Amino acid sequence: MRLSQTFNKTTKTIPGDEQAANAKLLIQAGYIYKEMAGVYAYLPLGLKVIENIKQIVREEMNGLGASELLMTSLQAKDVWELTGRWDDDKVDVWFKSQLKNGTEVGFGWSHEEPLMMMISKYVKSYRDLPVSVYQFQTKLRNELRAKSGIMRGREFLMKDMYAFSRTQAELDEFYERTKQAYLNVYKKVGLGPYTYLTFASGGAFTQFSHEFQTVTDSGEDTIYLDQNKGLAVNEEVYSDEVLSQLGLKKEELKEVRASEVGNIFNFGSAKGEQMDVYFTDESGQRKPVFLSSYGIGVSRLMGVIAEHFYDEKGLIWPKEIAPAQVYLISIGDDAVIKQADELYNVLTESGVAVIYDDRDVRPGEKFADADLMGIPWRVVINSETATNGKYEIKGRTEASPVNLAKDSLLEKISGPEK
Amino acid sequence: MRLSQTFNKTTKTIPGDEQAANAKLLIQAGYIYKEMAGVYAYLPLGLKVIENIKQIVREEMNGLGASELLMTSLQAKDVWELTGRWDDDKVDVWFKSQLKNGTEVGFGWSHEEPLMMMISKYVKSYRDLPVSVYQFQTKLRNELRAKSGIMRGREFLMKDMYAFSRTQAELDEFYERTKQAYLNVYKKVGLGPYTYLTFASGGAFTQFSHEFQTVTDSGEDTIYLDQNKGLAVNEEVYSDEVLSQLGLKKEELKEVRASEVGNIFNFGSAKGEQMDVYFTDESGQRKPVFLSSYGIGVSRLMGVIAEHFYDEKGLIWPKEIAPAQVYLISIGDDAVIKQADELYNVLTESGVAVIYDDRDVRPGEKFADADLMGIPWRVVINSETATNGKYEIKGRTEASPVNLAKDSLLEKISGPEK
Repeated sequence: MRLSQTFNKTTKTIPGDEQAANAKLLIQAGYIYKEMAGVYAYLPLGLKVIENIKQIVREEMNGLGASELLMTSLQAKDVWELTGRWDDDKVDVWFKSQLKNGTEVGFGWSHEEPLMMMISKYVKSYRDLPVSVYQFQTKLRNELRAKSGIMRGREFLMKDMYAFSRTQAELDEFYERTKQAYLNVYKKVGLGPYTYLTFASGGAFTQFSHEFQTVTDSGEDTIYLDQNKGLAVNEEVYSDEVLSQLGLKKEELKEVRASEVGNIFNFGSAKGEQMDVYFTDESGQRKPVFLSSYGIGVSRLMGVIAEHFYDEKGLIWPKEIAPAQVYLISIGDDAVIKQADELYNVLTESGVAVIYDDRDVRPGEKFADADLMGIPWRVVINSETATNGKYEIKGRTEASPVNLAKDSLLEKISGPEK
Repeated sequence: MRLSQTFNKTTKTIPGDEQAANAKLLIQAGYIYKEMAGVYAYLPLGLKVIENIKQIVREEMNGLGASELLMTSLQAKDVWELTGRWDDDKVDVWFKSQLKNGTEVGFGWSHEEPLMMMISKYVKSYRDLPVSVYQFQTKLRNELRAKSGIMRGREFLMKDMYAFSRTQAELDEFYERTKQAYLNVYKKVGLGPYTYLTFASGGAFTQFSHEFQTVTDSGEDTIYLDQNKGLAVNEEVYSDEVLSQLGLKKEELKEVRASEVGNIFNFGSAKGEQMDVYFTDESGQRKPVFLSSYGIGVSRLMGVIAEHFYDEKGLIWPKEIAPAQVYLISIGDDAVIKQADELYNVLTESGVAVIYDDRDVRPGEKFADADLMGIPWRVVINSETATNGKYEIKGRTEASPVNLAKDSLLEKISGPEK
């Protein structure tokens, strides 16, 4: 995209009440815009990062055999009353409103109940199961406080997957496969080395749930990490009893701050029983459907990545989710513009996403914006490069640029980032 | 996708209160699921149609130079109070709720005000304009009645675009280009021959707004159509005075029922003045930003297409937006399954989307579902085709199938639909 012709703007104005590094950086770099506390719009570059993360998640969910669908934000009271979760004392993040005729409605903060209800209309027999579905859906949660930028918002984008199984064993098998798919996601978005499967509080149905936690100084949670085993325990369940149960030793654990980037829940047959969602098994017996659910906060994940990768100049996106691979800067007259236009076309046609800074502004502003936006490669075209037919290229975290001929440049860009 | 392994189910159970043909057909064929009146979830096939329509719309909007972003559902009261549109007497479709601290919030039914507010933070000078942005966003509207299926819901997906211009002339130029882009969209989704630019009520700022209306028997609107000129007048502004103003003659007009599939609004400088959104022009003068907005209800458009193309057997999707191009049916033993698997792989690898009905159900059920789902091509593999190496193919509205060798089959599928 050409910056002169599109809406992409960095800014020096950050709302005064903004505390989180992710929010400050993403606002400055023109990725998000604050509508109100905990509520952010995604500007064009921010939406590209979101879409890149979604695509990585989508491929992994499809690999599990799950089908993508899209549930609704508006929620019917009677569906949630079946499990008691309409009650504001049980779920304290509901936004509620009413229809013109006075009927109360809620706004979806999660979708276990409506999906169980939906599936009950289509699933009658063991032949109809197992089934798994997922969605990318905007959740609304009336959080008391919202000071973590896009890491914990009142409105956020979530990938939530729901698996409907015939037995606990079938549920467990899907659950284990999903753990691996989740680890693949974190690896692909660049968080692999910092992200651990973590035992956390299980709620009403099981002793533990599983979270995925990314080690980061600004994390909201404290976890106890066994780096050799690649496992962690959330402080909420940290006790001698639990450690011995999990075969972990206190002296091998490290206390670190971390951010939750995913969680998975095993509801067993509880929701099926509460909501009267049954199927007929091979022997003609009526059995409750087993439910498990699997969440990744897509916008939260973007926030955690922003918090994890930045320096004093700005963001540093892993190339798999960067909104563009190349930030192309032209500094000079017609010959420079000609060379820059040519390279822009070559890169674009070969499928490389490019931010082309063709604006009529000072070179220093272009360099600063390239760093602030955190694009993996910066390519500069100036009178010198236009004369000798070379291109100046620098990785976002490299100290100095090098001059390369076009072929070497293209090779470098498609190689591993620096 | 293999039907045996994914969540795709037709149903005979239609909610009793459902009146609209689009809702009945789409529910039966497994495209949508009714959450409550006017609120529908998109099942996997339905989501595919939505995504296909979005992609067509996206390409046209990008062609206009607009940048995609994503605004929020949660809306701040103070932003809408600037134009008086927070008032329920002025806008009667608000859903409202409140934060824990009592602050009132609304849920987005349109986004002119928040986008004007957003743009005011980034646009200061004539050099920053013109700018145009668009989004695909879930709108919530508290409609009094909701009986038109996905043609008028309380929750629906909309493409809304907003253009910010420096002068009325600059606005008008973008407005005219968008008219053409909209006509391109309707043509590409298969509604071209039935869709007309229509003069409608302009509201507070201009005498007319422009709608796009698709002629359809179940339409909610009455329009007066001049087929030669390709123009229409909505009955809400139909008068001798308006006709003479537009150069239309009563005797050349035909009264028809139609469904609105898009509308565009020219706000001039009114919102800029109301919301204090100004820029500095070339001569250093402070000028209000001009606003125009452009909507296409994506889910509504899907409903209109469903209402427009069906027969007694089910839906008939135009191939550009069909969730798959081929419905592949296998009827028989191992040799049949082998031929079907092979064709499935060949088609999938060559980029043709296939619904592979590999379920263990009666052939009649497979044929009925192929028609109900409205997939452009039905290909049958049975013991006869497995023996002679041919494939039975039939277009959705063709009377009888033909048997073709593989090359001719592939050619037919990639050619124009029947």
